[in-house]
Amino acid sequence: MSVRVDLNISLDGYATTEGGTPENPMGEDWGKLTGAYVATRTFRERVLHDESGEGTTGVDDRYAASYFEGIGAEIMGAGMFGFHSFPDDPDWNGWWGDEPPFHVPVFVLTHRERHSVEMKGGTTFHFLAETPHEVLARATAVAGDGDVRVGGGVTTVKQFLVAGLVDRLHVAIAPLVLGRGINLWSDLRGFEADFDVVSETAESGTVHVTFTRG
Amino acid sequence: MSVRVDLNISLDGYATTEGGTPENPMGEDWGKLTGAYVATRTFRERVLHDESGEGTTGVDDRYAASYFEGIGAEIMGAGMFGFHSFPDDPDWNGWWGDEPPFHVPVFVLTHRERHSVEMKGGTTFHFLAETPHEVLARATAVAGDGDVRVGGGVTTVKQFLVAGLVDRLHVAIAPLVLGRGINLWSDLRGFEADFDVVSETAESGTVHVTFTRG
Repeated sequence: MSVRVDLNISLDGYATTEGGTPENPMGEDWGKLTGAYVATRTFRERVLHDESGEGTTGVDDRYAASYFEGIGAEIMGAGMFGFHSFPDDPDWNGWWGDEPPFHVPVFVLTHRERHSVEMKGGTTFHFLAETPHEVLARATAVAGDGDVRVGGGVTTVKQFLVAGLVDRLHVAIAPLVLGRGINLWSDLRGFEADFDVVSETAESGTVHVTFTRG
Repeated sequence: MSVRVDLNISLDGYATTEGGTPENPMGEDWGKLTGAYVATRTFRERVLHDESGEGTTGVDDRYAASYFEGIGAEIMGAGMFGFHSFPDDPDWNGWWGDEPPFHVPVFVLTHRERHSVEMKGGTTFHFLAETPHEVLARATAVAGDGDVRVGGGVTTVKQFLVAGLVDRLHVAIAPLVLGRGINLWSDLRGFEADFDVVSETAESGTVHVTFTRG
């Protein structure tokens, strides 16, 4: 069992974007940051339920497919789930529709008390106010032979990284300079020391860097 | 004629290192940041005058060879020349020995008034207290058909980048997180907009990203 993180970041290390509007809540930069990933056939099939077979099939798609392979449980922060964006909606069940792309138990870190919600396709959302160690123990217990992913957002991911709980970090670096937001790398000086590093470039210009605990 | 920059940076964008000692003035991190470049056959031949033919010959060496090709004049800051490290040595002529690897006119930006110094092999150091635009005009005038490189340090490079004076930026990104120093990317939000970007990975794990004005 490994604990995995996969993130889209900019060349200067930012994993969040600003400048959102009601029409485009994540902001224009988000489209640039995640564009190569969203364009993959795997993302279109798994997240958008697009069965047309369209989408890119190169290096980016290989990483996208790997993103969904072998995961037995998922952990995410309240922001990634959407609680911060829809604080007043008691029926909010995330951004992913009736059939979320996870198909495994998902542990949402939040101080909001809520019953678990079972979605179509095997995704069940659990809501917990626990430490990273505690929620990881819980996720590991249900992941079976699968890995546990810490999905995001970057603030949640950093808690797990700083605590030394992550075995594999994959960053897809988009070749653009955002200059603002939350930086993945701050507080992680020397992070590479315990890891093997593999770098690979995609047709899109995205650079995939994977740290695997040695 | 193009204005070129080539820099070694960390995954988190830092181009300088701290923690130097008298025995190792640049600090341990500098060795990690520049290790793949220093290991190339080209660096050994051109900078260390090592004619043994040893050194790496892969992707990193191709970029190292390109570093020295087609340059007609060089610009650097006082810190890169070494004035800040050796402020009391009136005969200080840089870190590169009697025969520096430039073989072209080198313009050193400094408020210290000094006569030009002609070194072996065609390198002449000129010392100027001028703006980036002024010194670039001077360098361009003597570069002939060659390009002008802004060599460093990163503070000097950033002045030229922010002023929009650079036509090609090549960064060799070492897969390590330094967490401190001077960050290349700050103040450069949206830099990529006017450039084509090509990414390539080397056997060493170094990621080479090149921005060329489109």
